[in-house]
Amino acid sequence: MRIVVLAGGIGGARFLRGLQRASPDADITVIGNTGDDIHLFGLKVCPDLDTVMYTLGGGINEEQGWGRTDETFHLKEELAAYGVGPEWFGLGDRDFATHIVRTQMLSAGYPLSAVTEALCDRWKPGVRLIPMSDDRVETHVAVTLPDSGERKVIHFQEYWVRLRASVPAEAVVPVGAEQAKPAPGVLEAIAEADVILFPPSNPVVSIGTILAVPGIREAIADAGVPVVGLSPIVGDAPVRGMADKVLAAVGVESTAAAVAEHYGSGLLDGWLVDTVDGSTVERVEAAGIRCRAVPLLMSDLDAAARMAHEALTLAEEVRGA
Amino acid sequence: MRIVVLAGGIGGARFLRGLQRASPDADITVIGNTGDDIHLFGLKVCPDLDTVMYTLGGGINEEQGWGRTDETFHLKEELAAYGVGPEWFGLGDRDFATHIVRTQMLSAGYPLSAVTEALCDRWKPGVRLIPMSDDRVETHVAVTLPDSGERKVIHFQEYWVRLRASVPAEAVVPVGAEQAKPAPGVLEAIAEADVILFPPSNPVVSIGTILAVPGIREAIADAGVPVVGLSPIVGDAPVRGMADKVLAAVGVESTAAAVAEHYGSGLLDGWLVDTVDGSTVERVEAAGIRCRAVPLLMSDLDAAARMAHEALTLAEEVRGA
Repeated sequence: MRIVVLAGGIGGARFLRGLQRASPDADITVIGNTGDDIHLFGLKVCPDLDTVMYTLGGGINEEQGWGRTDETFHLKEELAAYGVGPEWFGLGDRDFATHIVRTQMLSAGYPLSAVTEALCDRWKPGVRLIPMSDDRVETHVAVTLPDSGERKVIHFQEYWVRLRASVPAEAVVPVGAEQAKPAPGVLEAIAEADVILFPPSNPVVSIGTILAVPGIREAIADAGVPVVGLSPIVGDAPVRGMADKVLAAVGVESTAAAVAEHYGSGLLDGWLVDTVDGSTVERVEAAGIRCRAVPLLMSDLDAAARMAHEALTLAEEVRGA
Repeated sequence: MRIVVLAGGIGGARFLRGLQRASPDADITVIGNTGDDIHLFGLKVCPDLDTVMYTLGGGINEEQGWGRTDETFHLKEELAAYGVGPEWFGLGDRDFATHIVRTQMLSAGYPLSAVTEALCDRWKPGVRLIPMSDDRVETHVAVTLPDSGERKVIHFQEYWVRLRASVPAEAVVPVGAEQAKPAPGVLEAIAEADVILFPPSNPVVSIGTILAVPGIREAIADAGVPVVGLSPIVGDAPVRGMADKVLAAVGVESTAAAVAEHYGSGLLDGWLVDTVDGSTVERVEAAGIRCRAVPLLMSDLDAAARMAHEALTLAEEVRGA
């Protein structure tokens, strides 16, 4: 079975690990969000791609969900001693190697997709990981700074990591997305997929950004195979992260049903909500999307595998309907 | 007193520390060799400049004489895990920060001299450290590989660090030196100096490279102030490093007297040889260079300070003559 998964960072990566457990023989292609990419210290950093790669490759810091295991931060300490920031972005000594190799390959002329493939040669994540695009896309967020009242457009990472989404996101713009082309292999994988899954990743800044690359949304809608998503909102709050902060910016309420409606029945065939949101199933189905209520807390690998299994089961229901 | 010192790496740096002890009120300008600079992992690495900066700034690994104290090598381990080399060049996690800051500033358009000044803002070495040139100069070495018999031109660092100078250097070429211009401040410092010193640095690949930048040798010869050097060869062998290997390439025998004659009386006014080379004093003086035999082993800071004191004393003798 060929499965295509659109993935952001931690939520997508943990879901993928469950999917591998639930469907060990599946041929999985991951289309990774690159809207959170950032240039730091002259290096190209791709947090979501790396989180997927490290998580599936056994190199992730399990506790924090991002960055490397057995990590030190000496380089960052030294940069700070030189007065070179930002200090709010946590790059460890081991993690730096990934960004150095990536930047060197990009400088040598390789596209990001080829670089990602080369990095995965080491990590062997067991999936084919493709960035959504080889073109530069950077998600920016419009905010009003509480101290000065100044309206400012900042990089998503500055909003997410530095400000911890502590001020409302007034707008979320994937800068460059309109001009971006899907990376080689993205449209082909979608066209050849048997199932397409949206893990419980952020619907705005992760999956939404991938869908903002012209051609990807259309390819998914036209693929003629079940498209099933899992709600990142459980009981009106994000399972992790701060998805509610950016949902407000696109006028979507922070509920499982509203996120399904946001994707829409033109794109989504099936939707899993958590059991605590069982009462919302009817509303989602009224929107033309088949819906089931199942446990959606990825407390461990088994739970993630059960969620993946439920998603694949719903996909088969959709296919049989 | 204004002192100008031409410096390579370890020998130059340790001598400078002695000079600061011997002449605490002197205004010292160091013209640093950049011929051993190398691009590694997309980063600009300046080993000699950094050795001077770290040594005088208190950040050096005292035992090995280069690199940072309290160092880890996690980034390098990870690069190796990606299959990215070279593995033979020892860049530590803390050291990497210097190269990242430097590379970022160079990419932003700052010349190396301005970058070096910015890095020294942190380290406060107590001297003004200027690279010999803002232009790229890279010392290359022609060798015949023993296995294949292949004649090959390799970067100095590959010859020195990887091959440990284990094959004869057939030629030593400071590529780019002929087109290089002295960095801002170099000629001015020489013109305003009261004394110019050549520490016991490598006469070919350190001081020789600095002198290969058009204008520097002439400025020193024309400065009209005492120019005094210290022999890096003691008892027909280099005090440290492998100076003899590269001296052969320029047709100079590995003796204290031969090195003095190599510099020549047109450049050098005074020369210190070690007490074990006392018998050579006459030969050096016959070449028109005032010569004294004093202990030249920099076993500790006191010994380095005594050597610096002897050099300054000889400079005053030259001036009074």
